Amino acid sequence: MEIASMNNDEKPSNFFTKGLLWFKSLHEKIFAKIVGIAKQFKTIAKDDPRRVIHSLKVGLSLTLVSLFYYFQSLYNSFGVSTMWAIMTVVVVFEFSVGSTLGKGLNRGMATLLAGALGVGAHYLASATGKVMEPILLGLFVFLQACALTFIRFFPQVKARYDYGMLIFILTFCLVSISGFRVDEIVDMAHKRISTILMGASVCVIVSIVVCPVWAGEDLHKLVAQNMEKLGKFLEGFGDEIFKSSEDITESKVTKTSLIEYKSVLNSKNTEETLANFAKWEPGHGQFKYRHPWKQYLKIGGLIRQCACRIDALNAYINSEIKAPEEIREMIKETSMKMSIECGKALKELSKSMRKMNLPISADEHVTNAKNSAKKLNSLLKSRINNWEEINLLQVIPLATIASILTDIVICVEEIGQGVNELASLANFKTTKSSKEIINTNKVMVVEKIELSNNHVVITINEQNMKL
Amino acid sequence: MEIASMNNDEKPSNFFTKGLLWFKSLHEKIFAKIVGIAKQFKTIAKDDPRRVIHSLKVGLSLTLVSLFYYFQSLYNSFGVSTMWAIMTVVVVFEFSVGSTLGKGLNRGMATLLAGALGVGAHYLASATGKVMEPILLGLFVFLQACALTFIRFFPQVKARYDYGMLIFILTFCLVSISGFRVDEIVDMAHKRISTILMGASVCVIVSIVVCPVWAGEDLHKLVAQNMEKLGKFLEGFGDEIFKSSEDITESKVTKTSLIEYKSVLNSKNTEETLANFAKWEPGHGQFKYRHPWKQYLKIGGLIRQCACRIDALNAYINSEIKAPEEIREMIKETSMKMSIECGKALKELSKSMRKMNLPISADEHVTNAKNSAKKLNSLLKSRINNWEEINLLQVIPLATIASILTDIVICVEEIGQGVNELASLANFKTTKSSKEIINTNKVMVVEKIELSNNHVVITINEQNMKL
Repeated sequence: MEIASMNNDEKPSNFFTKGLLWFKSLHEKIFAKIVGIAKQFKTIAKDDPRRVIHSLKVGLSLTLVSLFYYFQSLYNSFGVSTMWAIMTVVVVFEFSVGSTLGKGLNRGMATLLAGALGVGAHYLASATGKVMEPILLGLFVFLQACALTFIRFFPQVKARYDYGMLIFILTFCLVSISGFRVDEIVDMAHKRISTILMGASVCVIVSIVVCPVWAGEDLHKLVAQNMEKLGKFLEGFGDEIFKSSEDITESKVTKTSLIEYKSVLNSKNTEETLANFAKWEPGHGQFKYRHPWKQYLKIGGLIRQCACRIDALNAYINSEIKAPEEIREMIKETSMKMSIECGKALKELSKSMRKMNLPISADEHVTNAKNSAKKLNSLLKSRINNWEEINLLQVIPLATIASILTDIVICVEEIGQGVNELASLANFKTTKSSKEIINTNKVMVVEKIELSNNHVVITINEQNMKL
Repeated sequence: MEIASMNNDEKPSNFFTKGLLWFKSLHEKIFAKIVGIAKQFKTIAKDDPRRVIHSLKVGLSLTLVSLFYYFQSLYNSFGVSTMWAIMTVVVVFEFSVGSTLGKGLNRGMATLLAGALGVGAHYLASATGKVMEPILLGLFVFLQACALTFIRFFPQVKARYDYGMLIFILTFCLVSISGFRVDEIVDMAHKRISTILMGASVCVIVSIVVCPVWAGEDLHKLVAQNMEKLGKFLEGFGDEIFKSSEDITESKVTKTSLIEYKSVLNSKNTEETLANFAKWEPGHGQFKYRHPWKQYLKIGGLIRQCACRIDALNAYINSEIKAPEEIREMIKETSMKMSIECGKALKELSKSMRKMNLPISADEHVTNAKNSAKKLNSLLKSRINNWEEINLLQVIPLATIASILTDIVICVEEIGQGVNELASLANFKTTKSSKEIINTNKVMVVEKIELSNNHVVITINEQNMKL
């Protein structure tokens, strides 16, 4: 009690002070919250500055279509229907050109079609007399809503025409039912369709003209980046895994950059969405219309498969390997080589994809990795009799790493084939150095005597032919 | 030439017949196309019959709101604004209750807020005079569109309030700008808001009352099903992998059912979407409001990690294992046990999750699997001196399988812990048999002498405490 009263003396806790403190803490809390939000604003804008530009573009388009309201002459010709232009801009304007175009075209086509059918349904129903009209209209609305809602479940429709289906249902209902109340239904449909088309055009034009964001380009970069992430891991893994226990502690800093590959595991959805958008886009930059976007999904799938193997490998990155020195050294050299060469191959593939050049030395790296795998196999076969008493338990982690790495080599080879297919489908450029290789290779094919030469390039191409 | 003319005689190819043939083939093609589409209709409906019901529900809701047009007294009070009810139904009605509720609440709240702000902006702008009014309105529209479009990039906002943001931009623009032309802006805003609220209510009521589809229930089932798929694979793998080469050919039929696990690898997106929807849903069936949906995402992540390991294991299912009989037999028994016990544990976890009972024997299976892993380790240690000349090359696949299986055991254990956490968070029921176990366990903890008993349950719980 004494202590309590003493405290009371020191910090007088009357109502006013309590309130002041509470207000102060609230003030601080709110301030911290605002600072937090501002920081998040900054990170999101910094992560992708195109987001800021996108926001400005939306604002610009909306201001443009709202001009219809401000100028008397424009407003006179469309009247209340002007709001459809605004609605279209808000709903259709998306981040990438592809999705804006897709939504715009969907909206435009669906409105035209459904508008025409709606007018037809209205005339058909009104011909049956005042009693039957609402019943027939109700039936039409019910049936088309049921049918189209079901069609939206079709995977092909869902991927590309989902929004169009929605707008079809909407427009058909509005036009056919409105006809029951509004007399000049054709005039109404005409005004609405024109404003919607205008709104959609504004979106498409602004989205293409002002700093366009191409979904296709994003997909291209994403796939290349994913390859690079795996490449980074494999190169890093080769360096990390066989370090002695003293080195392990200090190298933990670099490990954080290695787990970037984890994001690759869940990239399927993003890739598919981007590919769907990209199909709507016209030719842009290095990409022609009908660029083989499907091939990107195939490569993406192979990359994910490889990432899955890498995830299994990652479990060993923190474990210390205790195998006998001799075995350790033997497996170390070849495993490191496999991992690093695979990493180099992926990085090279990623680089050449980014620049849309034919990959030059990727096949070479893959062959090196395969040769290391073969070497490991033969080493294991030949040296086995020299080991008197090996502890299989200690060898197993090493053996697993080697085995997973062998799987990864196959994955990387498949990715390389996928990129080569893409290169031929999309006519990747032949750089000066890749031309040289092709020329050398041609000579080699003619004169087979030179195959025993030390020339590395020759061996690769020869290998590829065998595959 | 002769043959040709003969053919000409046999099949007179004049214009009419050609046309007829073309028409016939076209007819057949169209018929085949229609049959194909009808078949797809059937499959999609069969895959999930709730899709048909959903389509009928959309039709019903649209017919309900279109009644506003047909009855004179209803139409008189709302006029053209009735179309907002139809628009709301088309756009808001979604497959699951959660997403319909989420969209409906988003739309309702955003319309109310933006409507009020829009009216405010209109009065503010109109107070500045006829010249400044459009400029100020344009500025308001531009600024709020930019700000809210950018806020849509915030991950938390994107997940739950994206649609609300969109509707906010739309309503604010429409209400504030319309005020420039329409005189009775408050009346207009009032009518529009009421019709939108009515439309949203119809959606929510129909979606909850008529055969509701709960996103939460779907998520619950999906996670349980994914666990079962992995369990099936592991049980099957245990049976398959160590079969002799004669058995391999005949067992290929069953293998197709094993690769069901592949779908688990890409389930992240679906799970996250369902969890977001589920958060909107009120309590239903066995799920209370604020059911721990987040925990499902955690378990889902663990399951995918396990599926990734299984994918690495799957590479070995087709390879024939040539290791010496002795090693093969030794590793076979323990590996089979590990795989099958893990499979049983996952199946048990899946089953208990479905029924929302406390998992009874899953921990037991995990312990069995762990014991097998330990047994394998000690076997490898002890028997190693007996093997004179082993071919390490032949042992490596076996060693890898064993090593990956050990990883899987750890994964399964983590999944089990995740499910147990869920069970305590969501108050899973205690079945009669699990009660018995808990009672026995209590006795065991008190009198530790009985630990040497053959009672399996005791060992598990003791093991779990050690973890």
